Amino acid sequence: MTKTVISSPGKEVVIGFDSPFVIIGERINPSGRKLLAAEMKAGDYSRVEAEALAQVAAGAQMLDINAGIPLADEPRILAEVIQLVQSLTDAPLSIDSSIVAALAAGLAVYQGKALVNSVTGEEERLQSVLPLVKKHGAAVVAISNDETGISEDPDVRFAVAKKIVERAADYGIPRHDVVVDPLVMPVGAINQAGRQALSIIRRLREELQVNTTCGASNFSFGLPNRHALNWSFLAMAIGAGMTSAITNPLHSEEMSAVMGANVVMGHDPNCAHWIAKFREAAGGDGTTGRRRGRRRQR
Amino acid sequence: MTKTVISSPGKEVVIGFDSPFVIIGERINPSGRKLLAAEMKAGDYSRVEAEALAQVAAGAQMLDINAGIPLADEPRILAEVIQLVQSLTDAPLSIDSSIVAALAAGLAVYQGKALVNSVTGEEERLQSVLPLVKKHGAAVVAISNDETGISEDPDVRFAVAKKIVERAADYGIPRHDVVVDPLVMPVGAINQAGRQALSIIRRLREELQVNTTCGASNFSFGLPNRHALNWSFLAMAIGAGMTSAITNPLHSEEMSAVMGANVVMGHDPNCAHWIAKFREAAGGDGTTGRRRGRRRQR
Repeated sequence: MTKTVISSPGKEVVIGFDSPFVIIGERINPSGRKLLAAEMKAGDYSRVEAEALAQVAAGAQMLDINAGIPLADEPRILAEVIQLVQSLTDAPLSIDSSIVAALAAGLAVYQGKALVNSVTGEEERLQSVLPLVKKHGAAVVAISNDETGISEDPDVRFAVAKKIVERAADYGIPRHDVVVDPLVMPVGAINQAGRQALSIIRRLREELQVNTTCGASNFSFGLPNRHALNWSFLAMAIGAGMTSAITNPLHSEEMSAVMGANVVMGHDPNCAHWIAKFREAAGGDGTTGRRRGRRRQR
Repeated sequence: MTKTVISSPGKEVVIGFDSPFVIIGERINPSGRKLLAAEMKAGDYSRVEAEALAQVAAGAQMLDINAGIPLADEPRILAEVIQLVQSLTDAPLSIDSSIVAALAAGLAVYQGKALVNSVTGEEERLQSVLPLVKKHGAAVVAISNDETGISEDPDVRFAVAKKIVERAADYGIPRHDVVVDPLVMPVGAINQAGRQALSIIRRLREELQVNTTCGASNFSFGLPNRHALNWSFLAMAIGAGMTSAITNPLHSEEMSAVMGANVVMGHDPNCAHWIAKFREAAGGDGTTGRRRGRRRQR
């Protein structure tokens, strides 16, 4: 029963086959958000603070921290944001950068066992990121692409994941500290993307015995009613064995998908979380409860 | 690739591993509906007509017909309703009764290849229902309980299903004409009910190679926000291999679950059904599309 333990000084989160699904909040990321990028570059972290607190309040067990801003001092900003977020919440963090120096700066200030996001199967990445992960005793997200790009063949993506797990072992990183992202493709472009994803997630769990994560919303890219489609996809991916996702906990559909999937997987004892969230009495999520309640009477 | 073909004079529906999920509309059923029961007993089938048309319009590919009314002439009413519904729609029918004489009366008037709902593993049911199914060249729903009741052990439920498939074969009914209902339990009472259901559905598909169906809404019995929970469960059951369900097509959550799961399974070529249903331009489901559209902007 593979378990990846990520921690802060005050909290341990277990990503694992027999644990509730772990939501890693994706919102502290300036990509495509001009205002947030400008603020972060100028050292104004007020929006970062708000996003950290809102995501934890919405149910994210972990937070992803990305400071990828063009022409900015990414290592410094990433380290500052990590220190700030760790002062606000005990949610363990995923340190997210494509720049090795930024990962190093983030790991240097991080308190606890972090999740490094990410390494790919590219030789240069393996050689630069894995020693850093080992040095800090961290866990790492392994993205299943390599020098040849992202294969449309799920067998190739599985093979790349296997290679990364093996290379990590060479550096002394156990497989339970490698969380594989099988790279979910947009189903609007590749009709078999969903089936492929379910198949590779099952293989990663059964054959490679690793935990998995994904940027779930990529699946619905370009299609209408995306959150509804994400709902079915996330639930099915969890049924196939996916154990975490980097996603937006502020979307009620995705959160309902995950909470419902936890119930189906037997990871919500006595359905206590489901009932607490949705009971119609005071104390539940009144808005959602009432809306659903009305529908039920049709 | 197991295929169960159910037909009317004008339409064939395929329940199968490589086909879109089949929704069998459950609404023509007087159980727990006093007004409908009284009307049907009095020969007033206006509500039956409305339910038939509404369910087909909502996307049900088949309709379940049940006329189980206490102290009524069930065989006559069931036969009349089947003839009426077949005059209104070409959706193939599931003939649903616990009374063998009613199944016989229904099958006698049905035009096409019906789905008989149902036989159990009880010896007396096997001996009375299976010859009738064979005589009419019908398919049959096999419910995985027997004289000892419904086992909480999924291995026992699987074994009962296997016995029914074998007994059906003895009567000349091929396994592709047996659609197994693995009996989904309420997760509010049995915390492992979802996991058990996914496991038995997978075994029914991989080991027994049969199609499956279920009354999906039983899963969420007694819990709040039932349709949201049904959404995750239905999607996950489809991911595990379930190929049909007897459910209410008028509920938008369950329909979205199924339509999304069809996309994930690669059973909605070019996502054409999803796009047609949810695109925000005129012609789509404007209400849902706009509501989801607003949410997306949060």
